[in-house]
Amino acid sequence: VEAGDSARLVDLLEPLHAADVADILEQIRAGERAALLRLWGREIDGDILSEIDESIREEVIESLAPDVLADAVRELDSDDVVDILEDLEEPAQARILGALDREDRAAVEQSLSYPEYSAGRLMQREVVSAPLHWTVGETIDFLRSEEWLPDQFYHVILVDPRMKPIGYVTLGRILSARRDVRLSDLAEESFRVIAATEAEADVAYIFTQYHLISLPVTDQAGRLVGVITIDDAMSVLDEEHEEDMLRMAGVGEESSLSDGVWDTVRQRFPWLAVNLVTANISALVIGMFENTIAVIVALAALMPIVASMGGNAGTQSLTVAVRALATRDLTASNAKRVVWRELVVGLLNGVGFAVVMGLVAWAFYGRDVWLGAVIGAAIVVNLVVAALSGVLIPLVLHRLKLDPALASGTFVMTLTDVVGFFAFLGLATMVLL
Amino acid sequence: VEAGDSARLVDLLEPLHAADVADILEQIRAGERAALLRLWGREIDGDILSEIDESIREEVIESLAPDVLADAVRELDSDDVVDILEDLEEPAQARILGALDREDRAAVEQSLSYPEYSAGRLMQREVVSAPLHWTVGETIDFLRSEEWLPDQFYHVILVDPRMKPIGYVTLGRILSARRDVRLSDLAEESFRVIAATEAEADVAYIFTQYHLISLPVTDQAGRLVGVITIDDAMSVLDEEHEEDMLRMAGVGEESSLSDGVWDTVRQRFPWLAVNLVTANISALVIGMFENTIAVIVALAALMPIVASMGGNAGTQSLTVAVRALATRDLTASNAKRVVWRELVVGLLNGVGFAVVMGLVAWAFYGRDVWLGAVIGAAIVVNLVVAALSGVLIPLVLHRLKLDPALASGTFVMTLTDVVGFFAFLGLATMVLL
Repeated sequence: VEAGDSARLVDLLEPLHAADVADILEQIRAGERAALLRLWGREIDGDILSEIDESIREEVIESLAPDVLADAVRELDSDDVVDILEDLEEPAQARILGALDREDRAAVEQSLSYPEYSAGRLMQREVVSAPLHWTVGETIDFLRSEEWLPDQFYHVILVDPRMKPIGYVTLGRILSARRDVRLSDLAEESFRVIAATEAEADVAYIFTQYHLISLPVTDQAGRLVGVITIDDAMSVLDEEHEEDMLRMAGVGEESSLSDGVWDTVRQRFPWLAVNLVTANISALVIGMFENTIAVIVALAALMPIVASMGGNAGTQSLTVAVRALATRDLTASNAKRVVWRELVVGLLNGVGFAVVMGLVAWAFYGRDVWLGAVIGAAIVVNLVVAALSGVLIPLVLHRLKLDPALASGTFVMTLTDVVGFFAFLGLATMVLL
Repeated sequence: VEAGDSARLVDLLEPLHAADVADILEQIRAGERAALLRLWGREIDGDILSEIDESIREEVIESLAPDVLADAVRELDSDDVVDILEDLEEPAQARILGALDREDRAAVEQSLSYPEYSAGRLMQREVVSAPLHWTVGETIDFLRSEEWLPDQFYHVILVDPRMKPIGYVTLGRILSARRDVRLSDLAEESFRVIAATEAEADVAYIFTQYHLISLPVTDQAGRLVGVITIDDAMSVLDEEHEEDMLRMAGVGEESSLSDGVWDTVRQRFPWLAVNLVTANISALVIGMFENTIAVIVALAALMPIVASMGGNAGTQSLTVAVRALATRDLTASNAKRVVWRELVVGLLNGVGFAVVMGLVAWAFYGRDVWLGAVIGAAIVVNLVVAALSGVLIPLVLHRLKLDPALASGTFVMTLTDVVGFFAFLGLATMVLL
């Protein structure tokens, strides 16, 4: 198809959903992408632009003719425009802002004035609101007369005369009520708003916790300035998860499959460097016991078992804790109980595996029953440390207002390595020499 | 408050959202929970029941008076009843089914007839549909006359005379159109349905990929049998993420903070046992080189560095690959390119860290420049193996229709340990002895 047959290309791509076209653009190689955009660039619309992954969006935008770009951007709701603008460099931003109508530009610029990753950046400015005293009939007549309605809306937000949101009515209820019913009688029982300066992560939490479909956003004075819809909240949730996973693994959180080799090397290098330093600390610990190892070489073979069991148990506790902090199931009120539970679990698993491994070591590595006792004791110590650090490290990071996912993996692994080697070799030195 | 003052308790809990009440029940200790339920059990409603975590739901349900339970269940939509029933034992299931009206019971039983984790289990049976030829006015009159409408609905689904869904109209469009406009003229451009037997994970994917709010569900004959709404899809997405994270860490995917000590021990034991076996394999590899270590003891201190760098790099590749498979960004069409990228990244990072670590080893651990060369070469080998296995293992598991998150972490760590020790000690034996 890359043979230059642009008519065929249009036929092939035309029936696809914007999200699928974006996926195709992401999956092909950079050279192919440039060729495709040359042939097909004029067909790119706003929906495709907002679906494309950030890592290649700038490349795509630069390749577009100015009039195509202007048309594409003009058809989007303000939140999608903001989403696109956020990741662009200055000149490209200015070009897109220039393509907008004055009113839309003002709306987008105000959204951009809120901090990054805030509710203000997520919201769309197109809000359907109505005074509390309106009837269903008045509301329907109003909606029929308006032309600027957003693509998707699910509620009419009730506001007082000073534009403060005070409740909302689902469209389903409006449609199923008689024309003379007042909106105030149809309002949902539970109603929540969020300040524009609140963090994205809080938005995602509120949506999942209370099963919302849309959430009104207010400014400092408590006036309605926008609304966040569930599809945006779902994207945030998805991104938060991705960040947690990638951060725990020490991969740059912006990493994407369409990144090139150099970007990928640059993202992964820092945490590997940290790991090199921490691994050298473990090596120093082992080095302290070189004389012991020289006498009983079997210790060298057995010591990674102690470290590895600790690393594994630590990762288990850590993952559960990071996840629970993200979903806010782990809070100050149950932290003590969870830490205690981890401690007991670590102890029980530790004793279990200590017995098994002690017997294995005794049977296969030395005729000395004390070797088994030493490795067993070291495993108990290391599994308890692993369980505790797996939950305490993310809790402390969280208390310090840092992301609990960030690098906790490296901390826990280092700690379990150091403790594992030290406990095993230290005990061996005392007992076996 | 646990002093038995049930009036105060009602005052305190009454204004809270069901989700928050459920969180309180989850966070307190089991004994407190029983006391709270004794005092306050009669106030538990359906919303609270469906918010409670599965791990304690059975306990709560058993404590409720039969009439309270019946009232609670009757007010829920069919999908929420199914969600509650799924996790209960036979007798409790029968009790709840018995509390339902005949019609609701039939709906719930049919949903339960679909396989677990299928679209059929997620859907609610209460669907708002209309024939294609209706006008806006007819639809509004119909909605005003019906009483059984679901709590939340966002679309009217258009059906042909044989109940096959052929499109849908958002409520916003119905509200903003004149009464004489035909529904068929308001239908959304893109329209998707899903078969009731499809997997939950596909449902979540379709919702995120196409930004849907609701998705009609069809039976084998293609007839409309229910609808899945975005809040359910969002829960599925959340659960899928949780499963991926917990599985990668080798924690039972059902694990929850409210689990007791024994449940937690039982969940974590199996993967620790697997790890014990694989760690012993690494120990055997080291054991093969005991004579080498006996001569150059510094090798014992340095060898965990090689393994740890590999483990870290492998986890990085693995996390990116598992995540990309979950979001379907990694497919057959770009797998080759991604594997190639990982290979090159592994090689480049490997060479970088090999030089650094080679110099460190030469300077601090031996006067022999060859020791530095050996550890450098082993790091390059291990980082390439780590990068490749990190992406190939989940790809193979995926091809075999297994969950790529399941245990890939253990596989990758074992491989990088074995390869790391073997490459380092093997090269050392050849070069240094």
